Amino acid sequence: MRLSRYFLPVLKETPSEAQIVSHRLMLRAGMIKQASAGIYSWLPLGFKVLRKLENIVHEEQIRAGHIPMLMPTLQSADLWRESGRFDDYGEEMLRIKDRQGRDMLYGPTNEELITDIFRAHVGSYKDLPLTLYHIQWKFRDEIRPRFGVMRGREFLMKDGYNFDVSKEAALHSYNRHLVSYLRTYERMGLQAIPMRADSGPIGGDDTHEFLVLAETGESEVYYDSEITDLRFGEREVDYDSVAECQAVLEEFTSRYARTDETHDEALFNQIPEERRRVARGIEVGQIFYFGTKYSEPLGATVQTRDGASVPVHMGSHGIGVSRLVGAIIEASHDERGIIWPEGVTPFHVGLVNLKQGDAEADAACEAIYGSVLALGLDPLYDDRDERAGGKFATMDLVGLPWRITVGPRGLKNGVVELTSRRTGESEELPPEQAVEKLAQIYAGHRVPMAI
Amino acid sequence: MRLSRYFLPVLKETPSEAQIVSHRLMLRAGMIKQASAGIYSWLPLGFKVLRKLENIVHEEQIRAGHIPMLMPTLQSADLWRESGRFDDYGEEMLRIKDRQGRDMLYGPTNEELITDIFRAHVGSYKDLPLTLYHIQWKFRDEIRPRFGVMRGREFLMKDGYNFDVSKEAALHSYNRHLVSYLRTYERMGLQAIPMRADSGPIGGDDTHEFLVLAETGESEVYYDSEITDLRFGEREVDYDSVAECQAVLEEFTSRYARTDETHDEALFNQIPEERRRVARGIEVGQIFYFGTKYSEPLGATVQTRDGASVPVHMGSHGIGVSRLVGAIIEASHDERGIIWPEGVTPFHVGLVNLKQGDAEADAACEAIYGSVLALGLDPLYDDRDERAGGKFATMDLVGLPWRITVGPRGLKNGVVELTSRRTGESEELPPEQAVEKLAQIYAGHRVPMAI
Repeated sequence: MRLSRYFLPVLKETPSEAQIVSHRLMLRAGMIKQASAGIYSWLPLGFKVLRKLENIVHEEQIRAGHIPMLMPTLQSADLWRESGRFDDYGEEMLRIKDRQGRDMLYGPTNEELITDIFRAHVGSYKDLPLTLYHIQWKFRDEIRPRFGVMRGREFLMKDGYNFDVSKEAALHSYNRHLVSYLRTYERMGLQAIPMRADSGPIGGDDTHEFLVLAETGESEVYYDSEITDLRFGEREVDYDSVAECQAVLEEFTSRYARTDETHDEALFNQIPEERRRVARGIEVGQIFYFGTKYSEPLGATVQTRDGASVPVHMGSHGIGVSRLVGAIIEASHDERGIIWPEGVTPFHVGLVNLKQGDAEADAACEAIYGSVLALGLDPLYDDRDERAGGKFATMDLVGLPWRITVGPRGLKNGVVELTSRRTGESEELPPEQAVEKLAQIYAGHRVPMAI
Repeated sequence: MRLSRYFLPVLKETPSEAQIVSHRLMLRAGMIKQASAGIYSWLPLGFKVLRKLENIVHEEQIRAGHIPMLMPTLQSADLWRESGRFDDYGEEMLRIKDRQGRDMLYGPTNEELITDIFRAHVGSYKDLPLTLYHIQWKFRDEIRPRFGVMRGREFLMKDGYNFDVSKEAALHSYNRHLVSYLRTYERMGLQAIPMRADSGPIGGDDTHEFLVLAETGESEVYYDSEITDLRFGEREVDYDSVAECQAVLEEFTSRYARTDETHDEALFNQIPEERRRVARGIEVGQIFYFGTKYSEPLGATVQTRDGASVPVHMGSHGIGVSRLVGAIIEASHDERGIIWPEGVTPFHVGLVNLKQGDAEADAACEAIYGSVLALGLDPLYDDRDERAGGKFATMDLVGLPWRITVGPRGLKNGVVELTSRRTGESEELPPEQAVEKLAQIYAGHRVPMAI
């Protein structure tokens, strides 16, 4: 993309309404604009990151054998009356009357609707296990929306639902989700720690939240410092293997790690003192096993192998896709702006022409631009007639992890400059070697497939 | 995908509530399930088609230089009061009060919101031309929703908005959209004819609707039969060229083609009688030039080259993404089910194992399945232990354009059967040749890129 043809309305001033760094940087980098309280328009740069996260989530869910679909944003109140949650849910649920006076709501979650689909179409253990998921906009009418997309009212969430014939099978689904979430967050350049949590209005006993450590996190967290040394890495896990998924669960949840809701001081004090940590975390996902809490009232049953009819065992599993954009920025920025991890960056490289209009510099930039595109990578070329300082400040603010700087002086010696946004280190290279290096850097960060 | 692990709840009975063939077939093929009146869940097969259409629309919009972003579903009433449409819009607009009692609405369209973004960030002719678009769910509270996704209440639409410094420049944007729409529909296997139309609540003088001819269409259309011989084809158009885009507009709109709203009997009668056609059509898109209708009341102005401040010239351009799924089925089906065009089919080929459990047949199917995946194509393998008749009926119903049938008898002669869903013609080929033929068939139908 050429910046002269893009829409990237960066702000010079720091917006006064933004209290946390991700909100400030998303506004300043032209990623979002508030449409009304807690509701945002995603400007082109923000949409690009959001869509990339969405594609990564899809890819990892499909890899785990989960099946994508899409439920609507608006739901009829009737199903929620069947489960009892229409009255229970509280004022965060946005209740709506349509022109016929029918009670509707903007879905804050989808347990009822998915269970209704299941009960209409599935009747036998032979059709199980089954996990369906979607990535759809949700609405929760927060009394005091704040922190930008981190605590908005309209937000994008992946929510998945597993259906299994027994508790044992459902717990494997739980573990499978845990594994797929660890992979998902690491691909996004995040360390998200599974912590024992409270189930809230979803219900159920078994639940883990995934938290990204950050000073601005909304939750206080307590953990054994050994947990931050764990990495999922490149390992291959067979998602059908009960033992393999169970082993990952044990590896990542056997050490103490809890949010303030479930914190147990006595247990915490059993950790050697030098490993005890108290910090803050941002919740970016949660998994639940809640058994038959919805299948019983909604009558979602299956026939077992021996002919009995049993309510299906379920769990639900969420990833906060839009809030992840904020969480990544909270975890990865400096005083000059955002620093995108390679796996989620909106553009793979920024190309800065120090002397727009200089025939040689323009030609070199065009050649590099073409070579980067030919690699299947996405460059952002600042082809505007602006001062170098302004171009650098924009690139630093929007946070592309790599920058190639092209100027007449370097070209005389046959080199351009390749700079890492994270370390600030530059090296001078012939243009084709700079492009080759980019190819190597991004070889481990595949562009997600189209879903 | 292996059918044994997929969720494809096909129905044997024809649902009584469905009046038109696309609605019946989408229900029967397990593509959708009604959630409430005019609101549907997209089951996995339906979602796959929907997402494919969405990706094609993105790809063609980006090719035309238009920039993707995303506006929220819920909007504040304030902006709509500024434009005067909050009161004008009528009961199809779903009005909502949040917990603080603020007036909100579920966006039926986004002229106000996009103009607000524009006026906040753009002030100079240097930033123009600019076209921003998004693909987002909309809501129109139809008094009598029907025909499945063809006239639903919650629907997915691409809506794009051009901002130009003058009427002349805006008309080029109009033409550019027309060109990109012709390409888009043809990639979907559709012939959509631009017809002079009425502007309705969007406003403006210049507007064309794109209509797909189908007996079940909601509009009566009048046209010169020569128009159905036009094809956009593989031509390359320079979207920046005023002359090239204008030439396409003239080619595709110079013959008589109007909906009943703008039909002119006298003009129609000037066509030679043997070329006059009266038929029905499904609207799948519309483009508008409406000048300063929104920029004036909302104060969206730019400085021109000579320092004057002028309201920006705008148009809006929509493609009905979810209704297109129905329109494609209306235009392409037979008594056995759907017939997907290659460009939009949810799976590229169905693989039918005539004797599941037979070691040789199973091994041959696995080998073909792997080869098709290795081509980057998406097979649906019916690996269930079912009768051949049932497997064929399911494949015909869900409408995959190609089927490979594998059975012990053929394998003895070293062949499998490759069958065209459209013609019903089969040929016997060695497995690797059948796969090679698929590769050729789909070479011209690229899988859309991830946006």
